[in-house]
Amino acid sequence: MTTDLLARRERLLGPNVPIFYDEPVHLVRGEGVWLWDADGRKYLDCYNNVPHVGHCHPHVVEAITRQASTLNTHTRYLHEGILDYTERLTATLSHDLSQLIMVCTGSEANDIALRMAQAVTGKTGIIATDNTYHGNTLATSQLSTRRPPIGGYPRNVRLVPAPDTVRPVGGSLDGQAQAFADNVANAIAELEAEGCGFSGFMFCPVFANEGIPAIKPGFLDPTAEVVRRAGGLMLCDEVQPGFGRIGDTFWGHDWLGIAPDVVTIGKPMANGHPAAAVIARPDIMSAFRTAFGYFNTFGGNPVSCAAAMATLDVIESDGLQENARAVGAYALDRLRRLEHPWKAEARGSGLFFGVEFVRPDGKPATDFAAQLVEFMRRNGVLMNRIGRDMNTLKMRPPMPFGTEHADLAIDLLEQALREVPHVE
Amino acid sequence: MTTDLLARRERLLGPNVPIFYDEPVHLVRGEGVWLWDADGRKYLDCYNNVPHVGHCHPHVVEAITRQASTLNTHTRYLHEGILDYTERLTATLSHDLSQLIMVCTGSEANDIALRMAQAVTGKTGIIATDNTYHGNTLATSQLSTRRPPIGGYPRNVRLVPAPDTVRPVGGSLDGQAQAFADNVANAIAELEAEGCGFSGFMFCPVFANEGIPAIKPGFLDPTAEVVRRAGGLMLCDEVQPGFGRIGDTFWGHDWLGIAPDVVTIGKPMANGHPAAAVIARPDIMSAFRTAFGYFNTFGGNPVSCAAAMATLDVIESDGLQENARAVGAYALDRLRRLEHPWKAEARGSGLFFGVEFVRPDGKPATDFAAQLVEFMRRNGVLMNRIGRDMNTLKMRPPMPFGTEHADLAIDLLEQALREVPHVE
Repeated sequence: MTTDLLARRERLLGPNVPIFYDEPVHLVRGEGVWLWDADGRKYLDCYNNVPHVGHCHPHVVEAITRQASTLNTHTRYLHEGILDYTERLTATLSHDLSQLIMVCTGSEANDIALRMAQAVTGKTGIIATDNTYHGNTLATSQLSTRRPPIGGYPRNVRLVPAPDTVRPVGGSLDGQAQAFADNVANAIAELEAEGCGFSGFMFCPVFANEGIPAIKPGFLDPTAEVVRRAGGLMLCDEVQPGFGRIGDTFWGHDWLGIAPDVVTIGKPMANGHPAAAVIARPDIMSAFRTAFGYFNTFGGNPVSCAAAMATLDVIESDGLQENARAVGAYALDRLRRLEHPWKAEARGSGLFFGVEFVRPDGKPATDFAAQLVEFMRRNGVLMNRIGRDMNTLKMRPPMPFGTEHADLAIDLLEQALREVPHVE
Repeated sequence: MTTDLLARRERLLGPNVPIFYDEPVHLVRGEGVWLWDADGRKYLDCYNNVPHVGHCHPHVVEAITRQASTLNTHTRYLHEGILDYTERLTATLSHDLSQLIMVCTGSEANDIALRMAQAVTGKTGIIATDNTYHGNTLATSQLSTRRPPIGGYPRNVRLVPAPDTVRPVGGSLDGQAQAFADNVANAIAELEAEGCGFSGFMFCPVFANEGIPAIKPGFLDPTAEVVRRAGGLMLCDEVQPGFGRIGDTFWGHDWLGIAPDVVTIGKPMANGHPAAAVIARPDIMSAFRTAFGYFNTFGGNPVSCAAAMATLDVIESDGLQENARAVGAYALDRLRRLEHPWKAEARGSGLFFGVEFVRPDGKPATDFAAQLVEFMRRNGVLMNRIGRDMNTLKMRPPMPFGTEHADLAIDLLEQALREVPHVE
């Protein structure tokens, strides 16, 4: 059956389509933090952040059904849906981040954020880290080392060394924030010398794709100062950390203590219904909308707004941010106490964890981490890997993840650490 | 109420957000070809092609509800949904257009199509018409004269004069196809001289945004020859004409008699659920997927596939392509017989019509067309305008549009032509 599906995929979707696991999982059902495959096997989902309030949450499904049965159209007619949602969402944001454009994917959102920086500054130079992902459009792929652009990076893009807690930028954890900012300053100087000028710095406030390094609040303060002094915008990609996942705060940038000029959101926004958005200060929105008459056919349609609104309902009614904080702290404590000679660091924020493995010779334990992921999958727990060398376990479960789920996953991980061979 | 909503829009969404009508419509409900506003007024929808099989079609809503209650995830796990849909969809296409990437918006689809041309040719030069729209991403806006890119058109883009039946390219209808191709040939030579080389020509097979000019099958034959001789790809944007709308054929390019290398689809694909796709020959898909490891979080998720599949179900079960052919022919005949001194041309393909108005001095009757649209809206029929000078009425209703709806709309249009002043 799985073999059939793989052959059909190759025939119908072509080569090189990303897929998870040596033995891919054929899923047929989801509920809460659980997934089931075609053979009736049950998996604990420790990976997917898109089903934020739980797979197939009935409140979100009901909202989609109700609105899809009533009206689905576009924003060139008037409808309360997008206005009610924008009011409720922007109430969670400070820094005068009070206006929104709704789109369908995080890539579309970041593609707009880049142009907001262009519209405000009149420049094109853009900076991101050298181990990240901000989207799959032609423009955003130029900031995505995980999916590099066809033809290579253009001259208006500079990628600076990503933060790292095992191998910190500049050589020491204490000096990393300043060393990172110094690299951004150098990149700005290069962009100015190149004639592109500098428009903005795009970042994830927990550096999720970089491997969620164990940085501290304030880490980007020196960088923000450098960026602002050069007239650039701070473009904050909250596609992964947003909506309470990191526990302590609803947004990653509030945890980091940074005031962004633009915030983009996506994946968990509508619990899997394709919705994303760009939120900006009115002066920035106005500059963009004067330069470009943006319209998105599906963006902000009443069904997407209803799904996004229902997702906020459940986050609030089920106390999911507080759950992320409490369960996240519990799980991180257990992950930190895991013992293995190759374990370099367990780190996390709320319900987002990384466990990094390094070999005794200092090299990344990439294959070992891969085997751990496969062991977990074979035994009914779905997680994956991240980081520059893919030697860090990545856990980012749906938000109704409880301590009993954390125990189940971490008990199995303990077993994996005992049973998966670590050969030098 | 409407005033309140407009003020909230300005405050929450910012300035310059596209909206229809002098007195915007506040919609609350849709069913079939009908829409209702907050005051209970009923409108005949002669504009929206996204609710292809009718607003809020219960079969599509049921499919969405069923799948959203069961499983919604991404394509890095195995699922039949995307495979079943791809098999069924590609069976409607010839020319070995047999592999698909599913995304969320037509803009994302065209953004990929541009990169397929880059990946195959190793060149970046791209050509479109000078009165069109292919998307709102940074890259696709460079081909969109209706939403020009911030900072202007880059040097790898050439825009050739759009086909027109009232003012044909090259001066005569007979010579227009060759004159159009000659302009494409000149643009290719310019791109080669510029050092970009030529990667492809992107076009809508009915030139929908250009005002759906009354061209004939074979129109692009000379252009296709020029494009192929130069090694470029024919990138066919079927976002508007696709899925049976033009009546005679399921796809616009089959009506035109053109073999595209890449086809993009969007708006009507899932009846309003955000879904779009790129379909290509295996050699082209392979070149793209080798150059770029594309993955789209929401693209091809089981719910989007279920919605798209259900949309195909209704197109087939309700004979909507044949309906578009029959009702389209009936309505076009009536539109052609409309009498007004400023009426220059009534034209159309299936359920897609344009009625162009020109003043006696030869200038476009832009204001007059605008007043007709407002008259229709005030009297319960929604349509809009298109064309270089926005002097062409645009009608593109949901596909279950019957002769009784055509009569209602055209009777009212007759009244509008009598009552709206046409002052020199």
